[in-house]
Amino acid sequence: MKIDDRFYMQLALGEAWRYQGLTYPNPAVGCCVVKEGRILAVEAHHKAGESHAELWAMLAAYEALEGREAAVDSADADAVYDFLQTVPEELFRGVSLYVTLEPCAHHGRTPSCAWALSRFPLHRVVVATADPIPGHGGGLEILADHGIEVATGVCEEEARELLEPFLIWQERAFVLFKLAQTTNGRIGGGYLSSPESLEHVHRLRAVVDELLIGGSTVRTDRPTLDCRFVDQKRAPNVCIYSRQNEFDRSIPLFGVSDRQVRITDDIEPLLDRPSFLLVEGGEGMLKALQDRIDWLLLYQTPKLSAHPLSYNVDQKLKYLHHASIGVDLILWSRFE
Amino acid sequence: MKIDDRFYMQLALGEAWRYQGLTYPNPAVGCCVVKEGRILAVEAHHKAGESHAELWAMLAAYEALEGREAAVDSADADAVYDFLQTVPEELFRGVSLYVTLEPCAHHGRTPSCAWALSRFPLHRVVVATADPIPGHGGGLEILADHGIEVATGVCEEEARELLEPFLIWQERAFVLFKLAQTTNGRIGGGYLSSPESLEHVHRLRAVVDELLIGGSTVRTDRPTLDCRFVDQKRAPNVCIYSRQNEFDRSIPLFGVSDRQVRITDDIEPLLDRPSFLLVEGGEGMLKALQDRIDWLLLYQTPKLSAHPLSYNVDQKLKYLHHASIGVDLILWSRFE
Ligand SMILES: [Zn+2]
Ligand SMILES: [Zn+2]
Repeated sequence: MKIDDRFYMQLALGEAWRYQGLTYPNPAVGCCVVKEGRILAVEAHHKAGESHAELWAMLAAYEALEGREAAVDSADADAVYDFLQTVPEELFRGVSLYVTLEPCAHHGRTPSCAWALSRFPLHRVVVATADPIPGHGGGLEILADHGIEVATGVCEEEARELLEPFLIWQERAFVLFKLAQTTNGRIGGGYLSSPESLEHVHRLRAVVDELLIGGSTVRTDRPTLDCRFVDQKRAPNVCIYSRQNEFDRSIPLFGVSDRQVRITDDIEPLLDRPSFLLVEGGEGMLKALQDRIDWLLLYQTPKLSAHPLSYNVDQKLKYLHHASIGVDLILWSRFE
Repeated sequence: MKIDDRFYMQLALGEAWRYQGLTYPNPAVGCCVVKEGRILAVEAHHKAGESHAELWAMLAAYEALEGREAAVDSADADAVYDFLQTVPEELFRGVSLYVTLEPCAHHGRTPSCAWALSRFPLHRVVVATADPIPGHGGGLEILADHGIEVATGVCEEEARELLEPFLIWQERAFVLFKLAQTTNGRIGGGYLSSPESLEHVHRLRAVVDELLIGGSTVRTDRPTLDCRFVDQKRAPNVCIYSRQNEFDRSIPLFGVSDRQVRITDDIEPLLDRPSFLLVEGGEGMLKALQDRIDWLLLYQTPKLSAHPLSYNVDQKLKYLHHASIGVDLILWSRFE
């Protein structure tokens, strides 16, 4: 195995994927901090409104170098920014950062990472890809103006894949189809997923703009579709895709407070709007939306099943990322 | 992400899994070399008769520290051992090794790793698990006697899983069922796997004692079952599991030179013998052998398919390891 720039960037990418989708409407970003080959920190952006990856990582690097915890909440961007202003510059001399995306240049909901970094005598800032949003960017320039060596393009293709949802939801709906299956592709037969997978689904539901679900799934499974496994204010709004407007209103999803439920047979307006759409369903929804699905999110559970329910569809995929989640496998793919 | 002993050991484990099965009859072993937090090398044992993981890794660490390649073949255990004897001891002062298995103490086909390491003023040797074979072991003692700090039990459960085939094939046949499928579990419809997956299968075929295959697969698929994608002396011996002895001898597998083909309806003797058995087949073989299969090796290809051929069986699994292999996913599971 080669221990090079790509190795450190892969660590940053892997950490960022843990929060894919969950950072909506922000991009998923990861950051690895290295000093003379020693990995000090590998962190990621978790959630919009919280610290960016670089701030998480610089704080963790401070803690690794000092050998003690800082009295500051890592998630609180303003607090971390202010704290880093008090750190002696020399502590980070010779430190390199590997960031999957160019550090932000402008103060938005959170302070600018490029400015936070620029006061330290860093060795290098390596980014996988420049900020792709027209009018954004400038982070690398700020760093270079402060005498920091910058480099770009390390693992750029992987970083572009990581960023894809973010780029899509600038323009139109990013459509993520979620499916839980056994190892041999069966989707029936009761509870499939580990608590960690269920929690992950609930986290996603809590950030998406709308949950799209097929009428037959509503009738057959009578789902709740809430986020009860995670501490969230609200369950997602639900759009039921159905030609028929008649539903038994005792189905639990209608009884969740603070949620809108719509029933429609025309989802085109939904798909055109810049947003993040999570689709849950079976073969019917997969076929109905096949041309509009961007990515498939598969929770694959460690069993083989003889249950007859599966899904029949011809579709090329590209695997983007896989990881363990509890005893399950989580597999992100692009519809090709 | 925590950068601790477990982090370095996970790197060693991940590298070792790349050679799972291929090291037969040796165990798969990985090694990560670290100096003051800087990762110098992550290497693994590739193949019986070649350098053990520790020798690969120490040579790579030497190259990382010196910034140039050594004029020695990394795979040649004797050459690497002799080369390491010439390296100034001080070069490795403060270096730590993370090894998934206790370094070997006795010269066998290759020189002893514990002795090779013991002349250096290492900081620490951390092993995931002690040598589990009764009468083996002693490597940690040799290191400790030379004043090197030793530790054990880091990621021990993961290391035990990595070692499981090795432990089984000491006693009886280790039965590995290989299957290639689409993401939705379909096993028909033509070429499923990437060149990298096919090469991996061929590498496995080249090391196993016997390839076990169902009679119906032979009749239907007319396979060759050779190792033509890798440079190997011989194709594996084949055992056809069939109640019927009549086969069309023009089926390619009968025409491969230097191979034995047996046909039997009694595989018990085969299963009792300490050996490595690779099983290739579909639902029929899976069901016939269900109680005797140790692990499932799945090559999962990035597409969904409407092809009707799948496999119906109820079986709990434990996922042990997953990795990208070309565009595919390779997934190792234990039958539970
Ligand atoms: Zn930022
Ligand atoms: Zn050895």
